[in-house]
Amino acid sequence: MKKIKIGIIGAGRIGKIHADNLLRLPEAEVAAITDLFAGPELAAWAAARGITRVTRDSDSIIADPDIHAIFICSSTDTHVPLIIQAAAAGKHIFCEKPVSLDLTQTEEAMEAVKREGVQLQVGFNRRFDHNFRRVRELVETGAVGDTHIVKITSRDPNPPHADYIKVSGGIYMDMMIHDFDMARFLTGDEVEEVFAQGAVRIDPAFAEHDDVDTAIVTLKFRGGALGVIDNSRQAVYGYDQRVEVFGSKGSVNVTNDHPNTAEISTSAGIMRDKPLHFFLERYNEAYVLETRLFIESLLSGKPLPVTGHDALQAERIALAAKLSSRSNRPVKLSELGGVTCQI
Amino acid sequence: MKKIKIGIIGAGRIGKIHADNLLRLPEAEVAAITDLFAGPELAAWAAARGITRVTRDSDSIIADPDIHAIFICSSTDTHVPLIIQAAAAGKHIFCEKPVSLDLTQTEEAMEAVKREGVQLQVGFNRRFDHNFRRVRELVETGAVGDTHIVKITSRDPNPPHADYIKVSGGIYMDMMIHDFDMARFLTGDEVEEVFAQGAVRIDPAFAEHDDVDTAIVTLKFRGGALGVIDNSRQAVYGYDQRVEVFGSKGSVNVTNDHPNTAEISTSAGIMRDKPLHFFLERYNEAYVLETRLFIESLLSGKPLPVTGHDALQAERIALAAKLSSRSNRPVKLSELGGVTCQI
Amino acid sequence: MKKIKIGIIGAGRIGKIHADNLLRLPEAEVAAITDLFAGPELAAWAAARGITRVTRDSDSIIADPDIHAIFICSSTDTHVPLIIQAAAAGKHIFCEKPVSLDLTQTEEAMEAVKREGVQLQVGFNRRFDHNFRRVRELVETGAVGDTHIVKITSRDPNPPHADYIKVSGGIYMDMMIHDFDMARFLTGDEVEEVFAQGAVRIDPAFAEHDDVDTAIVTLKFRGGALGVIDNSRQAVYGYDQRVEVFGSKGSVNVTNDHPNTAEISTSAGIMRDKPLHFFLERYNEAYVLETRLFIESLLSGKPLPVTGHDALQAERIALAAKLSSRSNRPVKLSELGGVTCQI
Amino acid sequence: MKKIKIGIIGAGRIGKIHADNLLRLPEAEVAAITDLFAGPELAAWAAARGITRVTRDSDSIIADPDIHAIFICSSTDTHVPLIIQAAAAGKHIFCEKPVSLDLTQTEEAMEAVKREGVQLQVGFNRRFDHNFRRVRELVETGAVGDTHIVKITSRDPNPPHADYIKVSGGIYMDMMIHDFDMARFLTGDEVEEVFAQGAVRIDPAFAEHDDVDTAIVTLKFRGGALGVIDNSRQAVYGYDQRVEVFGSKGSVNVTNDHPNTAEISTSAGIMRDKPLHFFLERYNEAYVLETRLFIESLLSGKPLPVTGHDALQAERIALAAKLSSRSNRPVKLSELGGVTCQI
Repeated sequence: MKKIKIGIIGAGRIGKIHADNLLRLPEAEVAAITDLFAGPELAAWAAARGITRVTRDSDSIIADPDIHAIFICSSTDTHVPLIIQAAAAGKHIFCEKPVSLDLTQTEEAMEAVKREGVQLQVGFNRRFDHNFRRVRELVETGAVGDTHIVKITSRDPNPPHADYIKVSGGIYMDMMIHDFDMARFLTGDEVEEVFAQGAVRIDPAFAEHDDVDTAIVTLKFRGGALGVIDNSRQAVYGYDQRVEVFGSKGSVNVTNDHPNTAEISTSAGIMRDKPLHFFLERYNEAYVLETRLFIESLLSGKPLPVTGHDALQAERIALAAKLSSRSNRPVKLSELGGVTCQI
Repeated sequence: MKKIKIGIIGAGRIGKIHADNLLRLPEAEVAAITDLFAGPELAAWAAARGITRVTRDSDSIIADPDIHAIFICSSTDTHVPLIIQAAAAGKHIFCEKPVSLDLTQTEEAMEAVKREGVQLQVGFNRRFDHNFRRVRELVETGAVGDTHIVKITSRDPNPPHADYIKVSGGIYMDMMIHDFDMARFLTGDEVEEVFAQGAVRIDPAFAEHDDVDTAIVTLKFRGGALGVIDNSRQAVYGYDQRVEVFGSKGSVNVTNDHPNTAEISTSAGIMRDKPLHFFLERYNEAYVLETRLFIESLLSGKPLPVTGHDALQAERIALAAKLSSRSNRPVKLSELGGVTCQI
Repeated sequence: MKKIKIGIIGAGRIGKIHADNLLRLPEAEVAAITDLFAGPELAAWAAARGITRVTRDSDSIIADPDIHAIFICSSTDTHVPLIIQAAAAGKHIFCEKPVSLDLTQTEEAMEAVKREGVQLQVGFNRRFDHNFRRVRELVETGAVGDTHIVKITSRDPNPPHADYIKVSGGIYMDMMIHDFDMARFLTGDEVEEVFAQGAVRIDPAFAEHDDVDTAIVTLKFRGGALGVIDNSRQAVYGYDQRVEVFGSKGSVNVTNDHPNTAEISTSAGIMRDKPLHFFLERYNEAYVLETRLFIESLLSGKPLPVTGHDALQAERIALAAKLSSRSNRPVKLSELGGVTCQI
Repeated sequence: MKKIKIGIIGAGRIGKIHADNLLRLPEAEVAAITDLFAGPELAAWAAARGITRVTRDSDSIIADPDIHAIFICSSTDTHVPLIIQAAAAGKHIFCEKPVSLDLTQTEEAMEAVKREGVQLQVGFNRRFDHNFRRVRELVETGAVGDTHIVKITSRDPNPPHADYIKVSGGIYMDMMIHDFDMARFLTGDEVEEVFAQGAVRIDPAFAEHDDVDTAIVTLKFRGGALGVIDNSRQAVYGYDQRVEVFGSKGSVNVTNDHPNTAEISTSAGIMRDKPLHFFLERYNEAYVLETRLFIESLLSGKPLPVTGHDALQAERIALAAKLSSRSNRPVKLSELGGVTCQI
């Protein structure tokens, strides 16, 4: 059996998750893991999993002719240079989202990928969630008919640390970008125009960084459908991830996943446990599938399930939303034509 | 026991519903019913209920000193003159929604009501729905905390007849006006700005009358919360009436009512029956309560649960939405200041 | 329009409910109401509803040739003599359940009904519940296939007063009799054998009266299906009324009705309100329908929806359950052949 | 880090599942796998997982001093001799259920385990299911109060092959044994008496082997609670695994797990996908946890979560149920005192 040999760059939480998921695939081998801060702890972690090569030197990994593909799990600012470097070395690439906070740079990275003829998959993990896949399947097979309205709710259980807020790129690029991708994934259509309304309801720290913590964005799709996304940085009852697609033949709704189905009836009312806490719990299986499909596609030559084009389009929508929010007017994606500002 | 004697003007479907609901209240008496087309059929219908006075002459009913209150259930264009006439005669008034399609006229009617010192209740029946009342109660008692986001879904099972479309006042005034009132009711707050996006997805007839059949409207509230309403003229699975209020302490969702709780599991999947078909089924009990509270308030001297001010505010939001949809920009309600155009 | 004129015997809670429901039917007229303790209060109650004849003398009502039907809503011990008296007077009869606590007497009453050629409906109100009717419909139309298992859960929110326990006839005759009727209604089949297990878990007062407060009864049906019923005198979360029919083509489950669909998500979990409190709330509409179908059947000549035979069969099952519980062995209904003991 | 070295006996479906789950545990090592029919296919399967020792000779594995624990995943008739052999060799044991179809033999195996001072865990996988654990937790912490009624529904999607029926031990020993264990697990109490009613509703093949395919068993617990279990060999809508514990303070219900939360509303009704198909899907994570806790307990010296005593008790209840079903009378477990017949 042919095996895809992988080098992982970045051994933070998400890098380790990808490593563990790759280890469960007989067709993949984690040949090396690199991290700027690699030390004894990472070495022990790797040893327990049979990963023998641990280094701080990502260049040697990218250059290694025995390695077929690179997982880029390092900080966002390193994504573009690493993509360009890996593409130049002829490696296939899995890159975490967002590719960058700068559309021009994302475009450069995509051009490198195209030029070098390598494959790139972007880590829009939610596309691999069992609930959202079922929605997409029903839309694709026509069960919903023509799409009229798409609704996406996406709320985090806790706001990020204050340190992170200033480097996050803002709610539209950091958080809602997943929902912009979801809107494209579910409908199979492109967004033409957005109108964004933001508010600071949770923590004034967001305002200090010219950001918001609560936002509603409406979407106009090329095919004529409408959409709406709402985001909050803090849902005290937990991670809230729901979508609805409404069309001429019906509607599909998916709600949250829960740790169990227990319903507790007492004199106080009927209670059930909160949804799965956050993305690691909720998208646990989605991460497994995203990794598996990456490997399977490379082996079979089938197209990757999420591409650099998807990253680019989601970033464009996020940029338009940011402009809309600031100018309090609807913004067409076509307006962004030559816009290359950092967002 | 004191009884409130009622004259009903307009014996269409909704007039008859109010009559039947009043007949169940020991404190109310339906003294007369009038209709432009009153004939033997209406007489028989009334006789079976012990209503002895049936006439085409609404003037005599309004003038009758034995009658305490008038239910205005005739066509929209008659509402304002009838309110003014009834107010001048010193009658309390229950008027179906919308009061009119012209803000100036609605204002005139409200001034007459105020001048004559009578009470007026407007037929925003959804405020009396068991589900929405529970949401309001939870918001009011603080269970939700500060409101961050309000979401309202409102979809009809079937579009109206083509004849009706042209006189309806359009989706914002005819259909979404209920949701604008709901947004105010649930939050206890006023809308400051709206942005409306409409689309024709169901029937080109809407476009012919400069109307849409699908719409999403975002709202900014005075207190800083955001809101979104989606409307469709046709949900093939039935009347879809859901709301959600999300805040700092949690979220409240209400879904549709169903004719039963049966869940049918077969080899094809798990099925349940569609929601209650349309407003008559869904708001059956809400109509009963709205009538009962009108009578109780008149008897006790407590304020009426929905007033002319509520009608005026909902119409103002609807007008702003219409302007927004046409101009593709957010519209502040303060812009409407002196606007008195027919909408 | 022909009207059925009714005399109501017994003006307790259930007699008044039937009166109010009959008042909403244009085809029915409540001509008189009698009660052993009729006084000014009842007279006022009746006057407010336009019922002019209020008396303590039930004989004159039964004898009145203008009255077509009698509603027997008095205490259980009066049911049989009143049925015999009303049948002899040629009146149709609606009798509350149970007809009696003595099978021989119930049989005598049924013979009188048959001999005199009058119609009798027994107040098994649950047969008219929207949920259970939907289950029956699905069984009847074959959606469930051949029935394999029937499960019925029936739990009261509060135990009855101690005074009532001793005269109740015990849990099988007083409470589970509804479920025995439900088992026959849902399956359209007859019970052949029962095994009853009871326990005292809530209040020792039940043991003092040779009764139990918690019971599970298994059923064998003539057609080969199995069934199980569980009862509790106290479910602290409210009235619990659920059934399931499982068969060769699938399963139908119905759960409780709730006062609203609100789901409240907070940091403590997800909550909804308890089920509708007790039988008056849950079976409110069932009482309306049971009365309406009684009147409609009398007018149309169609068979009544629940008959004396149904009362007799449910009582036979209850008696068998009581014997089973006492003897700790399964009991066949055929064993009851000549048994006429009071139960 | 200390590692537990495991030898697996039996490389059928369940043996491979345990192997894969053990491979995910850093504290466990699958040192060898043996199967009577081990061949190139198994060798390849093992090689892909880094398991280097594959053999048909279980004796050498059991005798190997480097191996700490044995997983017995072979056919039921081999369980007892293998337990005795492994215990004599001082190995800890994980044995699939049922230990045997003969109580005397199960007792002999348990005596060997006790005598040799090894640990034995029995594969009652359902105890590790997220739903049932939540129920147990709520019972244990007192949220339900005193237990009054336990209800367990357990239905397979498809009946077993005809060949299996004759060697299965019958529905009570083969299928309901899981539910008997669940009843003990949920309540923390012992069953004193059972009454079993069986029926052949699905396939006459069951009758040919003196077995049934549909059964309801009622239970009396030592502490006074009542219980009921229903089983069917064929639920066409899929694997149906629900429990309810009802007590003085409330009730806990758990329903099935589904592949997604999608609700599809069309003109035909509202639909959702069937439950997870069968035990492999539903108890996927339960198998992982059961293996993990076995390893953790061995390492920490904490008691194993399911013991030989549990196996014995469940088998005793199953035997009593079989006797009850055959004799159509309730059977006390105390009657089984010296009973050692094969069941």
